[in-house]
Amino acid sequence: MCKTLCHGSRNNKMGTFVHSTSGAAVEILQNCVLGVDDQGKIAFIENDRDEESLSKLWGFGASDIKQLGQHEFLMPGMVDTHIHASQYSYTGTALDLPLLEWLNTYTFPVEAKYKDLEFANNVYTKVVRRTLKNGTTTACYFATIHTDASLLLGELADKFGQRALVGKVCMDCNSAVPQYKESSSECKEETDRFIKELLKKKSHISENKGEVELVKTLFPGCKSYTDVYLKHKLLTDRTVMAHGCHLTDEELEIFHETGSAISHCPNSNISICSGMLNVRNVLNHKVKLGLGTDVAAGYSPSMLDAMRRTLDTSKALTIQDPQHKTLSFEEVFRLATLGGSEALSLDDQIGNFVVGKDFDALRVNVCVPEGPIDLFPGEGPKVILEKFINLGDDRNITEVYVAGRQVVPFPDT
Amino acid sequence: MCKTLCHGSRNNKMGTFVHSTSGAAVEILQNCVLGVDDQGKIAFIENDRDEESLSKLWGFGASDIKQLGQHEFLMPGMVDTHIHASQYSYTGTALDLPLLEWLNTYTFPVEAKYKDLEFANNVYTKVVRRTLKNGTTTACYFATIHTDASLLLGELADKFGQRALVGKVCMDCNSAVPQYKESSSECKEETDRFIKELLKKKSHISENKGEVELVKTLFPGCKSYTDVYLKHKLLTDRTVMAHGCHLTDEELEIFHETGSAISHCPNSNISICSGMLNVRNVLNHKVKLGLGTDVAAGYSPSMLDAMRRTLDTSKALTIQDPQHKTLSFEEVFRLATLGGSEALSLDDQIGNFVVGKDFDALRVNVCVPEGPIDLFPGEGPKVILEKFINLGDDRNITEVYVAGRQVVPFPDT
Ligand SMILES: [Zn+2]
Ligand SMILES: [Zn+2]
Repeated sequence: MCKTLCHGSRNNKMGTFVHSTSGAAVEILQNCVLGVDDQGKIAFIENDRDEESLSKLWGFGASDIKQLGQHEFLMPGMVDTHIHASQYSYTGTALDLPLLEWLNTYTFPVEAKYKDLEFANNVYTKVVRRTLKNGTTTACYFATIHTDASLLLGELADKFGQRALVGKVCMDCNSAVPQYKESSSECKEETDRFIKELLKKKSHISENKGEVELVKTLFPGCKSYTDVYLKHKLLTDRTVMAHGCHLTDEELEIFHETGSAISHCPNSNISICSGMLNVRNVLNHKVKLGLGTDVAAGYSPSMLDAMRRTLDTSKALTIQDPQHKTLSFEEVFRLATLGGSEALSLDDQIGNFVVGKDFDALRVNVCVPEGPIDLFPGEGPKVILEKFINLGDDRNITEVYVAGRQVVPFPDT
Repeated sequence: MCKTLCHGSRNNKMGTFVHSTSGAAVEILQNCVLGVDDQGKIAFIENDRDEESLSKLWGFGASDIKQLGQHEFLMPGMVDTHIHASQYSYTGTALDLPLLEWLNTYTFPVEAKYKDLEFANNVYTKVVRRTLKNGTTTACYFATIHTDASLLLGELADKFGQRALVGKVCMDCNSAVPQYKESSSECKEETDRFIKELLKKKSHISENKGEVELVKTLFPGCKSYTDVYLKHKLLTDRTVMAHGCHLTDEELEIFHETGSAISHCPNSNISICSGMLNVRNVLNHKVKLGLGTDVAAGYSPSMLDAMRRTLDTSKALTIQDPQHKTLSFEEVFRLATLGGSEALSLDDQIGNFVVGKDFDALRVNVCVPEGPIDLFPGEGPKVILEKFINLGDDRNITEVYVAGRQVVPFPDT
């Protein structure tokens, strides 16, 4: 029996903990206690035979502990390394064109509307609440070129308690929707205004073949797409590049050397026919990799979907080449949690249950009334985890914590 | 404004109807009335300007009509052309092996348990309720070699009101789990007992390459997998073959000529790395094709998932070959409803809203409280349908009808 202790709060729980470590894609912790301190950090994780001494040491009583049920477990919050908040309104639609036409037809006309803060407020409120409900405790958001709306997105994430990196988009070239661009100097000024929120440089890279050709035309002096970023000094350990479906081994080597990371967005890659990333090859190159929903080219705002589609893509590669070593569901679980934190260089703060890290966690119940999962006798914690990954949804995520603060259920519901 | 009239019952509704016809993958009916007669058949579909005369003709009053909301529509019930009820207990797990190992390791040991009717009752009750809740009004079930348990499955489907074709499995060869087989004569006797329920001959065909090789070894006189079935007179217009990932054009020609159908199970095909069926090519050969979940090699019991994975597979084929003509979401909607009814040779009874067919229908509300979909201003019925297909789940399926009888919500909940 495991216990969570939220020291000094009423959020104390007991149950099974599931997380990833550097050595194990899935580690299942049983018969232990996890304590959270006043700053929302994990104070200790200990076997519960020490409960009495821990209780003395940390000063908590039985009433500080919540008991998790037999079908519950606690897992780290999920990290969405790539999501376009500004595209959320048409999520689940408009998936019939490849990238460049898709941008011109669906994306740019909608993103131009974010000049209107009321419009922005409606969409951004919904995307923050939706992703939190789906267990995304950390989101790396793209907004639009509009500074005020982008700052609003940051405020909304803060209000609802989501850990968010918000990136203002820079665009000095847009022939399809001319009103949706800015000059290079505007971009610089506006981005300076934005610098407090801009914790990371974020960009797409090598998403589909048409885009790769376009970039070659625009930057004839660069030998590859990656080289364009490298020459412009944009590849650092603070860089997260999305997709990377068509990166060569040579380019992956540059990623490894610079400490840059890849955000794998399989739903998007399939939905707009961009390509299929060989995650196994990326991991073999020791390049940091997290998962992203890439809403709205990806049609689902759920990181559970990102995990499932990552498995699908890996299996599609195995169908093409039986020598391909398929990813396991355990590895994919790791990518959605610890892997994402590494990709965003936040793994010193979040990603798994380690003393000193923030307590970002999901309370999962695979047996909620009217829930999506049927259970049968004799199913252990690993089977329960696998059922949750393959069949679960937001109904199973009954509580969400960010830095020790409970953010789901929402206070107003 | 559309109306459903369930003549003589309290199940009368008004709203938008969405269905497929031979000419249109998606037809959206507005401003009309649909009437259902005492036998559960569609009595008429008319524009609602004729409401008064219809009301006179069919004798219904305003109190016989339920009004659907702005975010609701009615669609035909979905047809799962291939689902292993007996494998439901481990749905969402055990997806790490290819077909033949998967069968020996996971499937046969579990299926052997269906000698125990209590075990069978628990699993079969859950699978029938789960699939009904997910909008499967017709299911083509595989059971096990156990006649009594297979008959029980038929009884349970009847009890909960699902249109079900139940097939007893025949297996005279099983070296991995020797207790899970029967002799050829046992099989014949037991199958005769079963004949009332056995409306269709159903079998797997050409699912993965290992299986194709195995069949060639077992039947050296046959030039192809399809030829094995043809020589044994099992290819008729009552035949539904699952998967077909590796069928040649020549084999598809035989399917077309014999009127045999294919059940496309994309989740299964990807999950156990069997292959990817080119549905476009099958349709070009004018072979009947429906969708199947193929639980438990497919991890999802939902036909919404079958639609999404069908789109994914089609897009993966486009990534491999840009000349491939990707399926649209409208075409996939058709396959899950009318296509399924054609594959099972039930299209004279179900599949769309046509006078004289049974009223098998789902009431869909894309805007239920705590539901999975966010809506934004200006979204018309086609966008709402697309959001439901991509993002919806059982929460959005608020009522299910089979032959005019409301079966969901379940009477006891
Ligand atoms: Zn993106
Ligand atoms: Zn099957």
